[in-house]
Amino acid sequence: MAAIKVYGSVISTATQRVFATLYEKELEFEVVAVNLGAGEHKKQPFLALNPFGQVPALEQGDLKLFESRAITQYIAHEYADKGTNLICAGKQMAILSVWMEVEAHQFDPVTSKLNWELIFKPMFGMTTDTAVVEENEAKLAKILDVYEARLSVSKYLACGCFTLADLHHLPNIATLSRTQCKKLFDARPHVSAWVADITARPAWAKVVAMQTNH
Amino acid sequence: MAAIKVYGSVISTATQRVFATLYEKELEFEVVAVNLGAGEHKKQPFLALNPFGQVPALEQGDLKLFESRAITQYIAHEYADKGTNLICAGKQMAILSVWMEVEAHQFDPVTSKLNWELIFKPMFGMTTDTAVVEENEAKLAKILDVYEARLSVSKYLACGCFTLADLHHLPNIATLSRTQCKKLFDARPHVSAWVADITARPAWAKVVAMQTNH
Repeated sequence: MAAIKVYGSVISTATQRVFATLYEKELEFEVVAVNLGAGEHKKQPFLALNPFGQVPALEQGDLKLFESRAITQYIAHEYADKGTNLICAGKQMAILSVWMEVEAHQFDPVTSKLNWELIFKPMFGMTTDTAVVEENEAKLAKILDVYEARLSVSKYLACGCFTLADLHHLPNIATLSRTQCKKLFDARPHVSAWVADITARPAWAKVVAMQTNH
Repeated sequence: MAAIKVYGSVISTATQRVFATLYEKELEFEVVAVNLGAGEHKKQPFLALNPFGQVPALEQGDLKLFESRAITQYIAHEYADKGTNLICAGKQMAILSVWMEVEAHQFDPVTSKLNWELIFKPMFGMTTDTAVVEENEAKLAKILDVYEARLSVSKYLACGCFTLADLHHLPNIATLSRTQCKKLFDARPHVSAWVADITARPAWAKVVAMQTNH
């Protein structure tokens, strides 16, 4: 099997999603740094890997993939027998799909906006829009109420085991935990326990270390 | 196998995605109409099916699913041997995943905003925001440039066959084709041929007929 190359950036939450999956599966991989500040993701040769100009992309021999959640699903299925099992069998896979879609269509849009306002705008010398923060904190609170109910009957989102549905949340949770939004997670006991559990995984610690060493 | 019940609305593009999949798979199903105008999707008993209060939801015996793309994937995998094959095997499935993610994260946000401004706002007596339309038409043009390149080397998005990656686009394409945005599809020959091909499928004609008979 050809070597796995991940094109991306250690500060990109979407790239972190792929790194976390590769570490969970105990796979060797090469990181090809894409300099976002220099706009390398909007130019060739990167556009040949992802014509939409977004990190990450994966290359393995002839296989070229982009979109972080497509990459994680490929890795989880292709290497089902390696490392942590991140998927389910049969009908349980349908429940896992539901919670992957919830992350993508409910959790991610709101938490990405909050991360932009509270982390990245200050980092780039821009001014946080407090109205956008308030609106999205209110939305996040309602989303986390649903998560609290789900996690009070299921240890993890899809089932009793950690899966891709949980893993996909890790980058945005980790970033938001450094902001005032941490209180929204802390206020909900089952959500809070779930956050503590999934952020303590050794594979995630390796992703965090990549940022520190950056 | 228990009967399939789809809770939703024939005018909801997300519900149409599920109907199209069920017709492609030649499966019997019961439609349980959810009155969106009366806000039934934001109240019990619907919230027990989807705590986020959005149509569609699927119920089949003990199995309860929501999020349209999770439902279509369940149907495509669970009934792999029935009707049209909508998925791929092995590494090709990874390519299919990429294009499902492209629909969800590139195409859908932009086309949903355009549909809201150009179709649903006028329907509800609200005023179309032309600045939002212009911004999203420009984004859609760039997205369709990528599709044009893809469809010039592959008959359908994932491979040589019609799959879920194409099907997921149908509701928003059909709605947008009734607006000024039709020109953006028409201007690109491979995109235009693809649109003509996928909207001519008998399964999609049945979904359109559900709206006409509504």
